[in-house]
Amino acid sequence: MDWLDEVKWDAQGLVPVIAQEVGTNDVLMFAWMDREALRQTAERGRAVYYSRSRGKLWFKGEESGHVQTVHEIRIDCDNDVLLLKVTQLGHDPSIACHTGRHSCFFSRYRDGVWEAIEPVLKDPSSIYQHKP
Amino acid sequence: MDWLDEVKWDAQGLVPVIAQEVGTNDVLMFAWMDREALRQTAERGRAVYYSRSRGKLWFKGEESGHVQTVHEIRIDCDNDVLLLKVTQLGHDPSIACHTGRHSCFFSRYRDGVWEAIEPVLKDPSSIYQHKP
Repeated sequence: MDWLDEVKWDAQGLVPVIAQEVGTNDVLMFAWMDREALRQTAERGRAVYYSRSRGKLWFKGEESGHVQTVHEIRIDCDNDVLLLKVTQLGHDPSIACHTGRHSCFFSRYRDGVWEAIEPVLKDPSSIYQHKP
Repeated sequence: MDWLDEVKWDAQGLVPVIAQEVGTNDVLMFAWMDREALRQTAERGRAVYYSRSRGKLWFKGEESGHVQTVHEIRIDCDNDVLLLKVTQLGHDPSIACHTGRHSCFFSRYRDGVWEAIEPVLKDPSSIYQHKP
């Protein structure tokens, strides 16, 4: 059986993906993949997601330069969630989030409020410069 | 604004949840929550998920004893994914997966094959004993 057929794709042909940083084990982000994104991720050794908002493949870092090198691809016990072990390239300290933060999970719940508690490492407007 | 209203629930009223172990930073499992599950998780300080297969709240550990104490609840930049920082109780070394393994992400992709590479720590049939 093709390894891609063993993945339980949802009704939209997608699967949830968690990206975790090698070394720190920090959870950097959460995204989705379709079959082609997963195939290309395995082939290139770089994270390729599927952007639900744009309806197409999302080569992580293609605009920001914040590419993710993929060391391992894991799947869960139900074959319906993926976990990538990645190195987050493009900035030191590493930035995975479009807000210029290390991780997308920078807001914490406490006493009835969500509060952003992680620093912005780089101004997003300087990350996503439109080239002339 | 109610903190529960700030969560972007999907069309089914659910949100994806990643459970990460405090200390090791290991990703233990992935599940879903509805509004009531999140409210109860915050109130009890224990993970309460929503079981899509059973269509009801899932008090993690109610059958297995593998309860998760919740230290932190985080939300991502789009307000549509949660990350729990948990202590996994009930067994040492900790077991989060129904297969008796530490983490649900025990299978790795390599050379066209998914391969289970983490040990079973406890026989699942002894975890889920039906009480008389």
